[in-house]
Amino acid sequence: MCTARAHALWDNVDVVKSKELERRLERAQEQIRLFQSISRLMSRDETLQDTVQAIVDLVQEYMHADSCLLYLLDRDELVLCACSPPRPGAVGRVRLRLGEGLTGWVARQKRLVAISREAYRDPRAKLFHELPEDTYEAIVSVPVVARGRVVGVINVHHREQHAHTGEELELLTTVGEQIGSLLIVARMAPSALDEVSHAALVLSSDSEASTAR
Amino acid sequence: MCTARAHALWDNVDVVKSKELERRLERAQEQIRLFQSISRLMSRDETLQDTVQAIVDLVQEYMHADSCLLYLLDRDELVLCACSPPRPGAVGRVRLRLGEGLTGWVARQKRLVAISREAYRDPRAKLFHELPEDTYEAIVSVPVVARGRVVGVINVHHREQHAHTGEELELLTTVGEQIGSLLIVARMAPSALDEVSHAALVLSSDSEASTAR
Repeated sequence: MCTARAHALWDNVDVVKSKELERRLERAQEQIRLFQSISRLMSRDETLQDTVQAIVDLVQEYMHADSCLLYLLDRDELVLCACSPPRPGAVGRVRLRLGEGLTGWVARQKRLVAISREAYRDPRAKLFHELPEDTYEAIVSVPVVARGRVVGVINVHHREQHAHTGEELELLTTVGEQIGSLLIVARMAPSALDEVSHAALVLSSDSEASTAR
Repeated sequence: MCTARAHALWDNVDVVKSKELERRLERAQEQIRLFQSISRLMSRDETLQDTVQAIVDLVQEYMHADSCLLYLLDRDELVLCACSPPRPGAVGRVRLRLGEGLTGWVARQKRLVAISREAYRDPRAKLFHELPEDTYEAIVSVPVVARGRVVGVINVHHREQHAHTGEELELLTTVGEQIGSLLIVARMAPSALDEVSHAALVLSSDSEASTAR
């Protein structure tokens, strides 16, 4: 079997393996760049609206999705706050009650949902006919979490069927946590940071004290 | 040249290439896991001290470093707030003035420094003889940044020479941003999150308003 032909077969196996490794590496590097971009957006002193818009744009691009929607809580309602591609008429206007539709279910249950086809048939789905996404095949819907609390939901939609990978679901979970933290960070005026002791905050923290300052 | 021997040479090239790709993929996946862990730590309602300790532990492990030290600002002083491996006697006690030593220089200049050998000879280094790290060969020192402000410094030390990769420096920059955001997040009581409108915060944000709330 130690012939040129046998070698040619093995070469082929190696080439396929290398191509697959290259593809996975590229995808991992895209994911790292996404995390780094979000982190940079968080630590800069930018407008919150610009920041969340930049994040949904990045997520849509990474997911090769048809759209990415961010809903945030306003008391017991979820309000559409950012959209990629942008849809200014819908932002601030589309509202769901907690528990209403798939998005409301995700917020109430604090659980991710991923449907790869016929998402519009899911019993939790509610057709508003307000958004074209209500007729799409695939959706992944992830809670936005801050300090253990659900404060919103991020949805990624594919017009056609899309089998979400474990990596994608993990990434979106992290994005949900990052947006949650961002919503807290944005409430603090940068100048207020000069007046506090960051060391004292850490050194004096215990399970009671850390949340009281 | 189309002989079994020529093929064997090519096989070898492919195997080396695959091994290198596997190594890079593994490193990228480690980096993703690190980001995900830090994000999870941020979004949970944990003690700040436990959280920063967990982060320096993760960084030390990822960097295969001999130690990772986190200093945070207390007015114009940098105070050692976490250490991996743990050194309880030094935490809260070791203090540097802004501009003092390499760490103080990084905080004042808001610039990363990476020295791969003989770090103790750097003119900015100041020997305190308090910490064994002052005699180590390699250091990378990165500002901890919150909303564009330096609030601390994170140092990674190697006892022997260590050529820091671009990936490592980018990762540490991101970790610095994440810790900065965490310090703000930890100031907000989780219960306070129930009383505010996250949607209104985003929808009403403009360059003036976003920092005032």
